[in-house]
Amino acid sequence: MLSNIRIVLINTFHPGNIGAIARAMKNMGLSNLYLVDPNDYPSEEATSRAAGAVDLLENATIVKTLEEAIGDCSLVIGTSARHRTFQLPIMNARECAETVIPEAKEHNIAILFGRETMGLLNEEIAQCHRQVYIDANDEYPVLNISQAVQIVAYEIWMAHQNELVHDKVVPEYPRKKEMDLFYEHLEETLYGINFVVRNHPGKVLDKLKRFFNRSRPEKQELGILRGVLAAVDREAGLNEGMSHAAKKAKEEQESQ
Amino acid sequence: MLSNIRIVLINTFHPGNIGAIARAMKNMGLSNLYLVDPNDYPSEEATSRAAGAVDLLENATIVKTLEEAIGDCSLVIGTSARHRTFQLPIMNARECAETVIPEAKEHNIAILFGRETMGLLNEEIAQCHRQVYIDANDEYPVLNISQAVQIVAYEIWMAHQNELVHDKVVPEYPRKKEMDLFYEHLEETLYGINFVVRNHPGKVLDKLKRFFNRSRPEKQELGILRGVLAAVDREAGLNEGMSHAAKKAKEEQESQ
Repeated sequence: MLSNIRIVLINTFHPGNIGAIARAMKNMGLSNLYLVDPNDYPSEEATSRAAGAVDLLENATIVKTLEEAIGDCSLVIGTSARHRTFQLPIMNARECAETVIPEAKEHNIAILFGRETMGLLNEEIAQCHRQVYIDANDEYPVLNISQAVQIVAYEIWMAHQNELVHDKVVPEYPRKKEMDLFYEHLEETLYGINFVVRNHPGKVLDKLKRFFNRSRPEKQELGILRGVLAAVDREAGLNEGMSHAAKKAKEEQESQ
Repeated sequence: MLSNIRIVLINTFHPGNIGAIARAMKNMGLSNLYLVDPNDYPSEEATSRAAGAVDLLENATIVKTLEEAIGDCSLVIGTSARHRTFQLPIMNARECAETVIPEAKEHNIAILFGRETMGLLNEEIAQCHRQVYIDANDEYPVLNISQAVQIVAYEIWMAHQNELVHDKVVPEYPRKKEMDLFYEHLEETLYGINFVVRNHPGKVLDKLKRFFNRSRPEKQELGILRGVLAAVDREAGLNEGMSHAAKKAKEEQESQ
């Protein structure tokens, strides 16, 4: 179950932090580390700070883009300061762990940590369903990244040990990739019916994405939404009833 | 209240860890750092890793011996691995925080962290009333010291935020120094009545100390125990009814 939970580090600057994070993860039973475009890696300092968790570094997945790190996840959580709100539902580390453990039985989950200096960018948070913060002293709330991972991982371990948390019934959620196909389809349809102008899309698509990420449609609900889009396409005579994105979504669904 | 809780680091080897610990403490509202005979300090690396918590380093108390760091504390807690037991009552970090917060209203409390390589020595644990461990993966349970402090401090912060924890009624406990005077008196009396032979004391005194540390007599109970010793001294005609240690204990009591 814990192997379905991945820690995703974006543009980490100091390799020592990557090593310290590998150790912090292994201490708490996590093994799945993704590095998105790290600044200076591999590195001796990372290996040294990893101590007995060098295996996590060796098995880490290094990718160029965030997309590659989270495409197969059905829950993406971004870490941020408590007071920085991106209009997403926000949880503290303990609540986050209690959410993650029951979902990790069946699904991949990503927890994103941003750069040492500036955290996650707005466009990265826009990829998330939920935000998590760490309770801390308001006068100095910014933890070192490896300490932040340590606490999030510790709370996951504590929730994992607590059998009551495991029993929560979790609906089935679509993967990030499936949501992206839905967004493509939605976009095509909205262009097709001239609700959005292709060359001047404005903010409406971003706002719709934020709405759907926040509301997290279940897998079945997403199927219904896709059906609605297909019906709209058909009635409007778009692309002989099915856009490219809709075809891909259908294929993806049938291949499972 | 949080300022009554001190973090005591014994013989820390890497100065970077001291800096990281200062930051971890300040993030969680702790300010009181004691360094017992640090290996390489002050140090630029400590200052750099402390980031916005350099004030904690500047205000840290540096001492030569553990005794100096804990004499005025009424609760001393030693950190250790979960499975290393010194026959003291043992708590995890969450239970530790729930114990510490209500006691910190009135009393000084020390939490001891040992060397990076080997933790606390047996004679240091013998000074403690309680042990604390961090829940972790059994396959790799040893955290970096700064990460361990981070979790202990985080749980203290979480308990501090929880008003229910504050309401616990706590009896008044003697300070470490007062307990030490009692131990001196006890020792003198046991020599005086020939229960222990001065030049061949064996293990019995250590075992009695461990018993009393574990059972943590309240202040009033300690007064009764001292009274018992004084009565024994008088009946046995030792030192005209009062040993040197007993005199000091009486003075200490009267000066409060």
